[in-house]
Amino acid sequence: MSLLIVGSTALDSIKTPNAENPRLLGGSASHAAVAASFFTPVNLVGIVGEDFPKKYVALYRKHGINLDGLQNVPGKTFHWSGEYEVNMNNRRTLATELGVFETFNPTLPEAYRRTPYVLLANIAPSLQHHVLDQMKKPKFVVADTMDLWLNIALQDLLKLLKRVDAFVLNDSEARQLTDQDNVMVALKQIHKMGPKYVIVKKGEHGAILSGPNGIFVAPAFPLEKVMDPTGAGDSFVGGMIGYIASQKGTVDSKIRRAMVHGSVVASFCCEGFGLQQTTRVTSAKIAQRVKTLEKLVRF
Amino acid sequence: MSLLIVGSTALDSIKTPNAENPRLLGGSASHAAVAASFFTPVNLVGIVGEDFPKKYVALYRKHGINLDGLQNVPGKTFHWSGEYEVNMNNRRTLATELGVFETFNPTLPEAYRRTPYVLLANIAPSLQHHVLDQMKKPKFVVADTMDLWLNIALQDLLKLLKRVDAFVLNDSEARQLTDQDNVMVALKQIHKMGPKYVIVKKGEHGAILSGPNGIFVAPAFPLEKVMDPTGAGDSFVGGMIGYIASQKGTVDSKIRRAMVHGSVVASFCCEGFGLQQTTRVTSAKIAQRVKTLEKLVRF
Repeated sequence: MSLLIVGSTALDSIKTPNAENPRLLGGSASHAAVAASFFTPVNLVGIVGEDFPKKYVALYRKHGINLDGLQNVPGKTFHWSGEYEVNMNNRRTLATELGVFETFNPTLPEAYRRTPYVLLANIAPSLQHHVLDQMKKPKFVVADTMDLWLNIALQDLLKLLKRVDAFVLNDSEARQLTDQDNVMVALKQIHKMGPKYVIVKKGEHGAILSGPNGIFVAPAFPLEKVMDPTGAGDSFVGGMIGYIASQKGTVDSKIRRAMVHGSVVASFCCEGFGLQQTTRVTSAKIAQRVKTLEKLVRF
Repeated sequence: MSLLIVGSTALDSIKTPNAENPRLLGGSASHAAVAASFFTPVNLVGIVGEDFPKKYVALYRKHGINLDGLQNVPGKTFHWSGEYEVNMNNRRTLATELGVFETFNPTLPEAYRRTPYVLLANIAPSLQHHVLDQMKKPKFVVADTMDLWLNIALQDLLKLLKRVDAFVLNDSEARQLTDQDNVMVALKQIHKMGPKYVIVKKGEHGAILSGPNGIFVAPAFPLEKVMDPTGAGDSFVGGMIGYIASQKGTVDSKIRRAMVHGSVVASFCCEGFGLQQTTRVTSAKIAQRVKTLEKLVRF
């Protein structure tokens, strides 16, 4: 079944100790949409400016992503630039130019409003609310976020948590949101804020799910070379919800395998700059890595 | 089959934000021996001074640990004191008083020399060598270490790596030893230094094994409350080698389950100060937690 994704559609300029890559296709919605596209049809909601390269539109289309909800307006596309340290764990934002994003008002095409699965990828909680307001009885809604919104839009985010089925955040955000250092305790507290499913992403250490069927400790796919982790979290959640949307059965029966598929797509994302590597992936390669991961954790 | 363990036998004074516990039974050999004792008979090699409390001797005995190799000499027992920060991840050594440890010369009782399994728990590499020199055809030798020895006894440690079957270290030590930030690359480099099995401990994130059968990503048992992580790494390696020594079959066929058993014993260790919680554990409780962990990682 189809999946609606709203989030940022951006140009990312990424520096690492070894390379500099200007104006790559980036943003939470771009990474999540490409990741999900391996599993299910995607309806994208976003905004870009006049400077948005045609090749990136072509890239979305190559992945079969529906762009009826991608606004193209006068002005500049959201541009983020950042720099990673040698160990790839610490990153520093060099510049954030919001451009057309500043006036983004995501009005959904009529045909989008009955999409059964919804991913509110990382974007201001007010916009996540606005998209949700327009949806007609979605089956399953996942929200992602980032530390910025905990700092400047906490009340909006807390209200959102009462409206979503699943909430995804990383470990430092979970600590910040709950003021709890222990992840297991943080998961319990976040449930009380609303979501039935809470997923804490731990980067190279995998992810932890807490849901009606208890805890699931999901592995990350171990990599020998991380080129650029930008978008890995978005790829994880996009791959995960894309897999859920593509499979029959209850969410409970498929969410664990969905997280593993998300982990695998995220691992490909880390192996190239921006979406370079993710866009080269095939369903067969994903299936192969899922199989490998199954062997890596079996005991 | 029986297991010889050499390492430190110490008194630990441990401060956390909520409590202060003076002169607990501690040291790498104490934690590893108690952990291993749930699976297999242990021959302990260590040294204590006149101040070593009788109740700790009784505790060893309660766990069926053979103390023929525990030297009791005039002077003071090795005493370590340290302090944990709120998040339990950062610890600060307040004092290290070597006492009788300074002159420790581990001469093995004759009956110990044919012990088939050997754990060289964390202690100076020169002493690990000295013990190994006295062993007669051990079946399987595991060595653990700490950052101190990388700093002050690297050449001894590198020589040791050529003599052991398995080497266990934590992630920051693996980075320091190889000057490689990526754990997967570090594992490969450490294999080149000698050991057939390399295990990198990652605390609450589990552990990674690299061996002839490839990579194994071992989970940690998720805990809601960590009282005191001191000795968790020693408990992990003690439980692991204890399980290996207790089971039939090749090392390859049992090392993954052995790591999971080690993880579980380490989780109990973290739930109390020093050995308080570990000594209360039963084989049934360990088996129960292993079962739970199997469910937590299944997908």
